[in-house]
Amino acid sequence: MSISFHIARTCGSARLGRLTTPHAIIETPVFMPVGTVASVKAVPQEILEELGAQIILGNTYHLYLRPGVDTIRRMGGLHGFMSWNRAILTDSGGFQVFSLSDLRKLNEDGVTFRSHLDGSSHFFSPESATEAQIGLGADIIMAFDECTEYPAEPKRVRESMELTARWAARSKKYFEEHKHEVPWACVGTDAAVRPQGQSPESPRIESEIIMSDGPNAELRSAGRTRASAPTQTQSLFGIVQGGMDRALRKESAERTIEIGFPGYAIGGLSVGEPRELTREIVEFTLEHLPKDKPRYLMGVGTPEEIVEYASLGIDMMDCVLPTRAARHGLLFTSEGKVSIKQARYAQDSGPLDPNCGCRVCQRYSRAYLRHLYASNEVLAQVLNTIHNLAFYLDTMRRVRHAISLGEVSGFLSDVWSRPKP
Amino acid sequence: MSISFHIARTCGSARLGRLTTPHAIIETPVFMPVGTVASVKAVPQEILEELGAQIILGNTYHLYLRPGVDTIRRMGGLHGFMSWNRAILTDSGGFQVFSLSDLRKLNEDGVTFRSHLDGSSHFFSPESATEAQIGLGADIIMAFDECTEYPAEPKRVRESMELTARWAARSKKYFEEHKHEVPWACVGTDAAVRPQGQSPESPRIESEIIMSDGPNAELRSAGRTRASAPTQTQSLFGIVQGGMDRALRKESAERTIEIGFPGYAIGGLSVGEPRELTREIVEFTLEHLPKDKPRYLMGVGTPEEIVEYASLGIDMMDCVLPTRAARHGLLFTSEGKVSIKQARYAQDSGPLDPNCGCRVCQRYSRAYLRHLYASNEVLAQVLNTIHNLAFYLDTMRRVRHAISLGEVSGFLSDVWSRPKP
Repeated sequence: MSISFHIARTCGSARLGRLTTPHAIIETPVFMPVGTVASVKAVPQEILEELGAQIILGNTYHLYLRPGVDTIRRMGGLHGFMSWNRAILTDSGGFQVFSLSDLRKLNEDGVTFRSHLDGSSHFFSPESATEAQIGLGADIIMAFDECTEYPAEPKRVRESMELTARWAARSKKYFEEHKHEVPWACVGTDAAVRPQGQSPESPRIESEIIMSDGPNAELRSAGRTRASAPTQTQSLFGIVQGGMDRALRKESAERTIEIGFPGYAIGGLSVGEPRELTREIVEFTLEHLPKDKPRYLMGVGTPEEIVEYASLGIDMMDCVLPTRAARHGLLFTSEGKVSIKQARYAQDSGPLDPNCGCRVCQRYSRAYLRHLYASNEVLAQVLNTIHNLAFYLDTMRRVRHAISLGEVSGFLSDVWSRPKP
Repeated sequence: MSISFHIARTCGSARLGRLTTPHAIIETPVFMPVGTVASVKAVPQEILEELGAQIILGNTYHLYLRPGVDTIRRMGGLHGFMSWNRAILTDSGGFQVFSLSDLRKLNEDGVTFRSHLDGSSHFFSPESATEAQIGLGADIIMAFDECTEYPAEPKRVRESMELTARWAARSKKYFEEHKHEVPWACVGTDAAVRPQGQSPESPRIESEIIMSDGPNAELRSAGRTRASAPTQTQSLFGIVQGGMDRALRKESAERTIEIGFPGYAIGGLSVGEPRELTREIVEFTLEHLPKDKPRYLMGVGTPEEIVEYASLGIDMMDCVLPTRAARHGLLFTSEGKVSIKQARYAQDSGPLDPNCGCRVCQRYSRAYLRHLYASNEVLAQVLNTIHNLAFYLDTMRRVRHAISLGEVSGFLSDVWSRPKP
């Protein structure tokens, strides 16, 4: 088994789970920071560890273009390349091909696109996108899908959903035939990813949980290695599409489940539709996904939304919002959003968030953060991003705690009643 | 006493000293990272502490323009504003007025200049520049001087040196009359700068040395507070000018010493002259400075140069080179300079510097650093700057160690024999 999922407790629709991957055991619901080009922008990996990030994302489209899959494969995959020993998930590249690149040409085989960096021409198919993801070596990789735009005609949504279903089958077929080519699959062949001081012959240490809390989290993590069997490899998740149409969502879920994956994602949401509609489609789609598999909602959301989706039964989420907003001076706090560029903070000697224990709130004032932002200092991006990630990861930690106490509905209403300045 | 300087050992012309300031006891020779607008670009203060930075620089010109002296004064001075509890030195603003601002108009009184930010008009005199530095509240502040350009006519160099001497006397007069206005001068009046958990009535804890080495450096630092007397305040250093003319350098030194300062800087060097000339003028000027006072060479240099100047008897140096070069991908290592943007590093899985213990060299590969730089990732600036500062601070730590062993000449030749790729 390259992945296993165990639900320890439920509370309403919310689930407290444990997702075992080759590089880490992840407590769910989990928020996954986005590290587009093998860096969660502005934050060193050791600080991500300190923040309790259990799993981060990489973007196949970006990494394929630069530095290239071969370079990363030679360094032992993304884990070795970026020196991150906890879990990683890569997307299939589909979403970026459709949103970032120019002159794309789609057919049954796949999609031809031009690089947003240099205009060079490339081709992604279910097979080549899966091949790239095997080379990158994330713990969890995604089937190559077409993310349907919003709004779209019913006929277009159906055709797109059906294409995604056919591509899912091809992604799985390629993966099953090549999954042992992952850079770290064969024990003893790649010293670069072997934990320090461990020879190829020494016994494997079973993975242990990366506890996000507690003073020794990093120490425990440092002693961790991937679980035992030499057949250990990546896991491929399927993606449900179908736009905003319930019948198509149901059909997409059924067809994806029929192909069979160890985890299922809900794609094609948060693409411009009203938030109430997102929630409805999420809730509806979840009814048609297996309860015993991890369920990943792609590309969401605000702090309030990630709490809400967790309460609906989503286990995994990712979003660029905390990192991107930070770089624009928009900070999330227990007292609501703070636009740190505002002059009102110029003389504010208080911490950004008095209820936050992150290194930024423990040391720096709003006045200083405002000054760094106004002066366009790089440190503004560093500190703002650290805080926003701390807020997201801490929010999800509290969600898990609320589920474990059976109090998620109270927690939810508490989050929604936060002041909005 | 707001400052004291004790020389523990000499080796040739080099001196191992201990400079006691209100916020820290500094081991010299010391390299001071530059934090222009109250941030050593891209590096959080807690990482500067980890690197063993004992004292950092702030630029009066920049801070006066943004966020303004009053804002910083209200936060308890720079120490409170940027949350840095070790020592700080500010320059007088003179150098930046002459190098950065437009439409400056100089007369005996001072200099009128336009902000490089918004074109607004401002006036700096010895009095107003000293007033600004008192408001910023650094441990060590500098007399307002004119940094003579290079090359310059003999007449121009003499007039400029004489103006600097008259301005030094005015700077000192203003400082003596106003030095108790420093934000942290009067114990009990400013809670913002009081160390946590210490009431105005509680006994002052004597400063202890910030040991740059050893695992508990940060812990010791955290327990440190400023030395005892309520009369504790800043110290004003004089600046020797005189261009590349020995007679004028000697006269400038004598006139500055006659005014009387607790420390002396050598200004007006590293302004475009040949390096051999810099060295000659430094060596010559040092002969005319008191041996029992700290001697600060402004604005130098490369790693090899800071070692050489320390060997000549310089106690303090500052330079933007390690931080600025880092942002341009130029990294200093024990094996010579590395331009990390080069394609030769794209597949290099080794550490940046195998002999460096910094968090960057301990964790990341050259390939990864090259990728971050090529991808224009913010993390490139963060990691590159951390390493370059580690290299500079470690170099100076080794210089101090060599002096303590009486082996500075061997260390010097060792540094100069480094491979230069």
